[in-house]
Amino acid sequence: MSHTSPRRLRDFVTALAALLDEQPDEARILDAGGALLRDLVAHDDWLPDDFAAPDPERYRQYLLHADSRARFSVVSFVWGPGQQTPIHDHTVWGLIGVLRGAEISQPYRIDGGALVADGPAHRLERGTVEAVSPRIGDIHRVSNALADRPSVSIHVYGDNIGAVRRSVLLDDGTRKPFISGYSNNTLPNIWDLSREVTA
Amino acid sequence: MSHTSPRRLRDFVTALAALLDEQPDEARILDAGGALLRDLVAHDDWLPDDFAAPDPERYRQYLLHADSRARFSVVSFVWGPGQQTPIHDHTVWGLIGVLRGAEISQPYRIDGGALVADGPAHRLERGTVEAVSPRIGDIHRVSNALADRPSVSIHVYGDNIGAVRRSVLLDDGTRKPFISGYSNNTLPNIWDLSREVTA
Ligand SMILES: [Fe+3]
Ligand SMILES: [Fe+3]
Ligand SMILES: [Mg+2]
Repeated sequence: MSHTSPRRLRDFVTALAALLDEQPDEARILDAGGALLRDLVAHDDWLPDDFAAPDPERYRQYLLHADSRARFSVVSFVWGPGQQTPIHDHTVWGLIGVLRGAEISQPYRIDGGALVADGPAHRLERGTVEAVSPRIGDIHRVSNALADRPSVSIHVYGDNIGAVRRSVLLDDGTRKPFISGYSNNTLPNIWDLSREVTA
Repeated sequence: MSHTSPRRLRDFVTALAALLDEQPDEARILDAGGALLRDLVAHDDWLPDDFAAPDPERYRQYLLHADSRARFSVVSFVWGPGQQTPIHDHTVWGLIGVLRGAEISQPYRIDGGALVADGPAHRLERGTVEAVSPRIGDIHRVSNALADRPSVSIHVYGDNIGAVRRSVLLDDGTRKPFISGYSNNTLPNIWDLSREVTA
């Protein structure tokens, strides 16, 4: 993993931007974008270690790329053993692809002001892609399915997700304002093709 | 400079992408994009030190942002005392804004197969913006005008410039193939607004 090539991530970014340039509706973004993400997480040879490092205290979210007009952002999420997110919403479309390990996803919905499980928790195996959005279901909790090692997933959202004003949901349905930010001060440089040519 | 805000660079990236979304011709890109760059380099309070660090051996070029489809890239160029570029072309439009120090720019053109100076060398003071392109003049050499400290300029190009196949020109007009690459493995994260909100 020390000699990773940025080509796969760069090709994903380029292809997703080309898709969005067609101004597709959300269903098509999730369908065609999901296929692109499935290709990306089918190979675990491209994410630099710095953007897959777990933290002992809590899960991390590393920004990998942001589109110039924030039409989308690409993030690596890293859960240490036993770590999980709070129950949260997104307010924009999102795609989740498991790159390493496995995750448990528990969807929720608001029903008469209360927070209720929206179907059973399910396990996302490596290579799996799942979607969220206000249209199809936007509230969930994600946990590392593994008790003994980190899991890593690659997420794509229809905005600069670290800056979106959204909510953490408490058990009684109360919303707590939430802006996630990012865990990283620097992004990977995926644009230096000269190193690939000379490599 | 240790507590820089990424807002100015993010706003520049967003505004330039909005301009390019209008699919303007090159003259308008250089005119309106040049005005945006002039605003950016009018304040020297936003470039993190890591992307302004000179190298004792040669000038450095740090990628700051690349557009998802490589419609443009933003780079900081750092010349140590006495350093200069070779004579080179770009093959795409470019805008050069001096952020810190001062630079000497010497334009060239090919005349009957030979390389000749295209007007006098001129000094670019802090805050100045200059343009290059195959249409208006694409060959130059840039030098640090200062013998005792680094100069820094912010460049914008109509492609992922580190990956463009272009030329270094020898005195006799011979072209040597040239792909510049970048000096940095990581880009600044300019997308974490949560830090600005809480700062
Ligand atoms: Fe989520
Ligand atoms: Fe140049
Ligand atoms: Mg973009």
